[in-house]
Amino acid sequence: MDFEDLYKSLRLPNPPDTKLVLLVLDGVGDIATAETQFKTPLEAAKTPNLDQVARGSAMGRMIPVYPGVTPGSGPGHLGLFGYDPLDYEVGRGVIEALGVGIELQGGDVAARANYCTLDQQGIVRDRRAGRIPTEVNEKLCEKLRKIKRIEDTDVIIKAGKSHRFVVVFRGKDIEGPLTDSDPHREGLPIKKVEPVVKSAKAEKAARLVSLFYGQALPLLAEEKPANGFLLRGIAHMPHIPTFQERFALRAAAIAVYPMYKGLAQLIGMRKLEGTNTTAEEFQKYLDEYDNFDYFFIHVKATDMYGEDGNFEQKTAVIEEVDKVLPILLKKKPTVLAITGDHSTPVPMKGHSWHPQPVLLHSAVSGSDNLERFTETHTNRGSLGLFYSKDLIRLMMANARLFDKFGA
Amino acid sequence: MDFEDLYKSLRLPNPPDTKLVLLVLDGVGDIATAETQFKTPLEAAKTPNLDQVARGSAMGRMIPVYPGVTPGSGPGHLGLFGYDPLDYEVGRGVIEALGVGIELQGGDVAARANYCTLDQQGIVRDRRAGRIPTEVNEKLCEKLRKIKRIEDTDVIIKAGKSHRFVVVFRGKDIEGPLTDSDPHREGLPIKKVEPVVKSAKAEKAARLVSLFYGQALPLLAEEKPANGFLLRGIAHMPHIPTFQERFALRAAAIAVYPMYKGLAQLIGMRKLEGTNTTAEEFQKYLDEYDNFDYFFIHVKATDMYGEDGNFEQKTAVIEEVDKVLPILLKKKPTVLAITGDHSTPVPMKGHSWHPQPVLLHSAVSGSDNLERFTETHTNRGSLGLFYSKDLIRLMMANARLFDKFGA
Repeated sequence: MDFEDLYKSLRLPNPPDTKLVLLVLDGVGDIATAETQFKTPLEAAKTPNLDQVARGSAMGRMIPVYPGVTPGSGPGHLGLFGYDPLDYEVGRGVIEALGVGIELQGGDVAARANYCTLDQQGIVRDRRAGRIPTEVNEKLCEKLRKIKRIEDTDVIIKAGKSHRFVVVFRGKDIEGPLTDSDPHREGLPIKKVEPVVKSAKAEKAARLVSLFYGQALPLLAEEKPANGFLLRGIAHMPHIPTFQERFALRAAAIAVYPMYKGLAQLIGMRKLEGTNTTAEEFQKYLDEYDNFDYFFIHVKATDMYGEDGNFEQKTAVIEEVDKVLPILLKKKPTVLAITGDHSTPVPMKGHSWHPQPVLLHSAVSGSDNLERFTETHTNRGSLGLFYSKDLIRLMMANARLFDKFGA
Repeated sequence: MDFEDLYKSLRLPNPPDTKLVLLVLDGVGDIATAETQFKTPLEAAKTPNLDQVARGSAMGRMIPVYPGVTPGSGPGHLGLFGYDPLDYEVGRGVIEALGVGIELQGGDVAARANYCTLDQQGIVRDRRAGRIPTEVNEKLCEKLRKIKRIEDTDVIIKAGKSHRFVVVFRGKDIEGPLTDSDPHREGLPIKKVEPVVKSAKAEKAARLVSLFYGQALPLLAEEKPANGFLLRGIAHMPHIPTFQERFALRAAAIAVYPMYKGLAQLIGMRKLEGTNTTAEEFQKYLDEYDNFDYFFIHVKATDMYGEDGNFEQKTAVIEEVDKVLPILLKKKPTVLAITGDHSTPVPMKGHSWHPQPVLLHSAVSGSDNLERFTETHTNRGSLGLFYSKDLIRLMMANARLFDKFGA
């Protein structure tokens, strides 16, 4: 029997008031080095509330994808949601489109785009058009929106920050991935995009991109310095079985940043809007408690300050989350998992492969008799070292959602 | 996507001066028992240099093959080199041939051989011919070398220690494995060898072995007590993708014993000759620093004294390695991994399945805040319990050789 079938065959109905909460402190895992005086932000932070939860929890560490593999936010979160990130690859264009808040539909082909500067011969002279301000970007995107449709396909354009924007093609019989139009260095012309793997759908998508260029470049011809644009990571929104189909749980996503709501939407989670702080996110959980079985709550700032190499601020964010944690605990969920989607170590200023610490709390999680939720404590936890994609199974087991296997 | 393809797709070019060092203390892992006063050699040894490295390292334990499986040197090392030992089985004849220093070529068929005593009816009376001295063995092998060629196939014969030697058939269209000619107990005649799996190549190899017996036994007929020989583990040298092909690293092997150089050669590592002590091995690394990206350095004596059940000497070898470790650290590698290929516990006097301790040190390994490199310390490390075959991925990640996966 396949392990997926095994879990399905053991699935019991939810007991009343079953609530699973996955609290993701994005990039929370870190490394201790001489640079950080051999402490991690989790170690340095004062976290009385988290400590109390930790003392009654099972803990461990999770490999986000494979040993030594550093994940982006897409694979990182898919793993946490119980999807093997290698089975469900999500292209960069799709992630970018989700990031600017476009509500993608299955089959949409999305591209990361950025404005560039071309010379009179059409040679790329500045791949980022001098990093034009966002307001200029928005005006240029408004111009490009004259192109609403090519053949039978809708075109959706949305500005990001600085020189970055997104182009989405929504129609029938198109697919990615396509090669980049970005030559990846200055001094070369814009490249023609081609299917990465030949197929009628990919060829149609490539043709639409060429036609789009044909109409769009003249619209920008008089602009300075952004008289051109480059496309990268052109990919389609994959059809992924929904979270509800796979786990029979009504799931909600509570996040501030569009990308994380988008990633949850990829697998059919309902996104709950209107939160700007962690306190508001926890309050949203209380408000929506009755309407869902599973809540994904996302805190972004741990990752942001990790990327900035800002030890103090990353530590401060953890302390802030700790301070408002009692809001969440007003209605204690059946199962609470706290972890990251990957590590973002301060000394590395970026995502990394280091397994992220994880804490699992329920009436039956057991306690590992460890005092705090830190990297070195979780190293000694009963959950050991395991893959992110298995976390959902442990959460469901802790909610008593699986029957015994065999007699 | 396949995980092997994943790693390939993420491979970045080596930054300048990227050096990965795998220091194998053969069989270093051990177990604490009443017999050893509940200490392991790593615990008993005074290792100030190793301790200092350990304090800045990530640590864990590795399963050499599968839980409960005790590996020989072949699978043990293949795992460390990033080859799943079940995908790349290397027959005992091949290992033995590498061990006596024969430079095998892909397709060679090799057999472990030992001299035996036959009675007048051809019945095996002593399977080891009274363990004749090595000098006698060498004279007998010289006699057998009259047989240089059978049909279109070269025959290579090389003496080992005591009654053991190796026979290699080098030609076209031959393969193993073949059944043993050794009846495995006294009182039976030499057995005819047969293909384990029928194939034209295996049948040709079996025929060559029979013809070899036909010519060889008369050459020994007058000898006493070694008037016969038995063959075991007849196998061919497999075609294995090279380390360079798989990992794009120029690799060198620094070892004293031929078998370990041979195992490294199996996957195309360059063997560096002329070292007799660990200090010389470390010096060789310094001398060859510019010429390679990856260095496999092998220390044998930890395993030897483990096999002898000699706690004091195994401990002393660890202390000796510690004393000369500063030579290696004169040119600190980008990534240093220290481990064994398996455990060889003193109380067991042999290889075992116990996961071996491993230490990983780099600028981004992080520190697990553990004081020493011992079994009990590594039990609490951030690397957790993982498979030997994944070590190369962690080493490469620590050298920053992988791009981020997904956005």
